[in-house]
Amino acid sequence: MRNVAIVGTGHSKFGVRNDVSMSELAWEAIKEALDEAGLEQKDIEYFIVSNTGGWSSEPLPAVVIGEYSKLVPKGTVRVEAACASGSAAVKLAYDMVASGHVDIAMAIGIEKMNESPTPIVVEFIGRAGNYFWEFENFGLTFPGYYALHATAYMSKYGATEEDLCKVAVKNHYYGARNPKAQFQREITVEKCMSSRYIAWPLKLYDCCPITDGAAAVILASEEKAKELTDSPIWIAGIGSASGTSNMSKRGTFSSLEAAVVAAKMAYKEAKINPDNPVKYIDVANVHDCFTIAELMAYEDLGFAKRGEA
Amino acid sequence: MRNVAIVGTGHSKFGVRNDVSMSELAWEAIKEALDEAGLEQKDIEYFIVSNTGGWSSEPLPAVVIGEYSKLVPKGTVRVEAACASGSAAVKLAYDMVASGHVDIAMAIGIEKMNESPTPIVVEFIGRAGNYFWEFENFGLTFPGYYALHATAYMSKYGATEEDLCKVAVKNHYYGARNPKAQFQREITVEKCMSSRYIAWPLKLYDCCPITDGAAAVILASEEKAKELTDSPIWIAGIGSASGTSNMSKRGTFSSLEAAVVAAKMAYKEAKINPDNPVKYIDVANVHDCFTIAELMAYEDLGFAKRGEA
Repeated sequence: MRNVAIVGTGHSKFGVRNDVSMSELAWEAIKEALDEAGLEQKDIEYFIVSNTGGWSSEPLPAVVIGEYSKLVPKGTVRVEAACASGSAAVKLAYDMVASGHVDIAMAIGIEKMNESPTPIVVEFIGRAGNYFWEFENFGLTFPGYYALHATAYMSKYGATEEDLCKVAVKNHYYGARNPKAQFQREITVEKCMSSRYIAWPLKLYDCCPITDGAAAVILASEEKAKELTDSPIWIAGIGSASGTSNMSKRGTFSSLEAAVVAAKMAYKEAKINPDNPVKYIDVANVHDCFTIAELMAYEDLGFAKRGEA
Repeated sequence: MRNVAIVGTGHSKFGVRNDVSMSELAWEAIKEALDEAGLEQKDIEYFIVSNTGGWSSEPLPAVVIGEYSKLVPKGTVRVEAACASGSAAVKLAYDMVASGHVDIAMAIGIEKMNESPTPIVVEFIGRAGNYFWEFENFGLTFPGYYALHATAYMSKYGATEEDLCKVAVKNHYYGARNPKAQFQREITVEKCMSSRYIAWPLKLYDCCPITDGAAAVILASEEKAKELTDSPIWIAGIGSASGTSNMSKRGTFSSLEAAVVAAKMAYKEAKINPDNPVKYIDVANVHDCFTIAELMAYEDLGFAKRGEA
């Protein structure tokens, strides 16, 4: 297996982006990544577009984006892994470079959720679990899914709504310092606590917003990476696992079992001791669609003991 | 790059499959592939679900299918590359095994188009080109796209409607011998010629039907393949390319330029002389969504000279 490095990254501004088409939004991220890597479109041998979609007028965006960004006729595919779609695109691009099939691949993530009215988006995300069992029969939407996790976690470990709000306060603190973030104002625990309930115990500030945005990552083989940059980011390990989409078949609600399996795989590949991963890791970017998701991620990744995140 | 072989394949019966759920339909193919390879679900290290979707009630089918088929907690992703979605899944599974990341991966293709009424399916496929330019502004549906190709080809090379019908006659001849095919009756050129126009010059029998069906392919590393079977099918080369989705930006209507690029890549990898590929190939399975697509494929792949397919 060949070594693979990240040699360029790009991000669009996130938020309500009615000012641009889907292709224009993707290009903001693609251009930034190309510039950072010192590459042109012709150098990209394959591009993977991550898009869950369902809310956009362009339902099959890979080639549409490729055409606008002048990446055609390179090979392409759209990938979707629900909330993990972007990571899945990076993983597949990684496999492609690691295999020796190409030397330089690009993973592009894009969603333009605001192309649909909010009720349609809420319905679509609700269907994204297990439509037949939970959405059709019980009307369970995504805030509802995570509210089940939150109540289970609170019941088991005595966590409070304030504990959840602290996650939102931290994330808004960083958002206020990121010119590309959707929300750029700090909030307080009091502000979060007094926001309206979306699905008890989750309040407005416990929930991620509907958003438009794009990101791009360029991966390169060892040889190419060394040509392109003095500071390649080497990928030391990747893990990928799935859980039941049917909530009622899960063994626990205070953890995502798939995250535990995937973390073990990544740690093994990266030669990280799974009993003390914090020792090896300086920065972690975890999924925070709801505040409870971030707390569960800390524990599933082994950064904190159960109930102590 | 490691050698990769196909060690198991499976197919569902195709057609109107209101008798099964999406998961049950996928399982028909998955089970057949597992049985052929002599494997169990636990042996599959990663599964890729190809699904264009948009017509099904389960919009994110990868995990739903994995759960039903007892493939969870293995890693998974859904991929979409319009009409080439199935091939894209095989290509990504191939990269994953070739890289050494896994030894055994499964590519599963599934569509359940009959979950939506025909006008919705027609609209969705129409949007699958370039929604903004051609569907919204001109109402161009997929039979319309290929009708443009057919008229261009007929005008340039003097092909006739009868020539197109001969493709349909051949395909129905084989369908009549395949117990899993949607249509199992032979037709004549006369029957095709007298069928109603869908988009001139394409008639009913020039067009593929709306269908439900699933297929599965298991790929294995050289070492595993040799353990599993005495007759592995080695993958000698894969090519992948894209074209503009905007028809008005294509350089020609009597060819799919992306197919020419992809064929050259595959021939190079397989060490096939691109000037005479027929010499090396015993069987070809080309895209035949419309009869004209099959004729263009023969020429794009170099099996026949331009206008002689």
